[in-house]
Amino acid sequence: MRAQTLLARFFYTLHFQFWRGRVVLRAMTSLTFFHDFLSQPARAVGLLLGAAKIEHVKHPLKVTEGEHKKDEEYGNVCPTREVPAICDGDFCLFESSSILKYLVRKYNLPEHWYPSDVQRQAKIDEYLGWHDKLKELEGVQKRSKDMLENYFLKDKKFIGGDEICIADLQAICEFTQFWMMHIDHCEGYPRIAQWIKDVQAAIGQEIFDEVHVAVYSMRDQNMFGTK
Amino acid sequence: MRAQTLLARFFYTLHFQFWRGRVVLRAMTSLTFFHDFLSQPARAVGLLLGAAKIEHVKHPLKVTEGEHKKDEEYGNVCPTREVPAICDGDFCLFESSSILKYLVRKYNLPEHWYPSDVQRQAKIDEYLGWHDKLKELEGVQKRSKDMLENYFLKDKKFIGGDEICIADLQAICEFTQFWMMHIDHCEGYPRIAQWIKDVQAAIGQEIFDEVHVAVYSMRDQNMFGTK
Repeated sequence: MRAQTLLARFFYTLHFQFWRGRVVLRAMTSLTFFHDFLSQPARAVGLLLGAAKIEHVKHPLKVTEGEHKKDEEYGNVCPTREVPAICDGDFCLFESSSILKYLVRKYNLPEHWYPSDVQRQAKIDEYLGWHDKLKELEGVQKRSKDMLENYFLKDKKFIGGDEICIADLQAICEFTQFWMMHIDHCEGYPRIAQWIKDVQAAIGQEIFDEVHVAVYSMRDQNMFGTK
Repeated sequence: MRAQTLLARFFYTLHFQFWRGRVVLRAMTSLTFFHDFLSQPARAVGLLLGAAKIEHVKHPLKVTEGEHKKDEEYGNVCPTREVPAICDGDFCLFESSSILKYLVRKYNLPEHWYPSDVQRQAKIDEYLGWHDKLKELEGVQKRSKDMLENYFLKDKKFIGGDEICIADLQAICEFTQFWMMHIDHCEGYPRIAQWIKDVQAAIGQEIFDEVHVAVYSMRDQNMFGTK
């Protein structure tokens, strides 16, 4: 782990924040984000950090070179040595869904990301539980797409309702994984096709593209086949 | 789906409840619990319902006879046709972790089940996310037991701290699945061995045994081998 990242992790920075309509100066522990944007769940967390403008220090780990397995200190951050993980000061956390919920609650993000209403929240948890159980690449198989099209997106613009939520971030990154192979997996799924556009619009194209640079690069180099 | 269950699902019952120190009469939609106690996540939900004394209507579905796949109406309750699922009036929910959280929040259960503190809750979500990603029967493999012994239960009596939480319920039911085969999977794992006793004590032996009747029955009939 690089010295400057360690320093950043424990360094308290001063932030201007809005608090009850006034701008206040506030001491805040810095947040470190361990990731490789070739990983779907790492992109999901990256999208939330970007869309919600949460200040953080990026700590990239090259999964293709096994950095997440070799880095001595990363074992202390994340015992499973997967990406992503975060450290908020001394508090370290892995598992992307738990990180997304933590960020929403810790940074008091707008309700739509993860509503506090008991039933609306439960429906987002239902998606996340279902999503977490999918095996590698299963998210784009027919059965999973049928569930997304006909259940999770039934009569709704996003998984949680009219506005984007953390479940949408987890879901879309399964699809964008296939962009590397020039596959969009939307044929015959009009709701999913529209939802992918809506998610990008809700996040903002600039943030979305920033997180997907590695994906676009793989695609443009035809690393996994051509169109 | 049986007529009396349907009736129970939509039937409003009158409950005496404590509200700000007074006993009040309250109308409440009945809760239906769809389960087979041979399923680990169904037992986890059964343990919470029992331990927290949440009134509910039991709707058993015999998984070994494929009832969860065949029952016409169950597809409307749970599109994946897995067990467990619940319906709280018209609100239906699947995915055991989302059900556990929903019950804690909906019924205002004591904090220890799923603390509202941001970091404590995130650590329980971290366990649940990790747990949900385990493939069938992976929870008792060496690598998973090492994680439970040396990370999730490190310096703690329960996964969430000093008191039992919903993560403990999910975790223990992976171990009790092997009781059917007379295997306890605790050799060389002193923290796990102690924790299994502690979880039973915290839930209460009567409730614990009630949910495990099917497991004990399989074990005693030596359905999957003898000691």
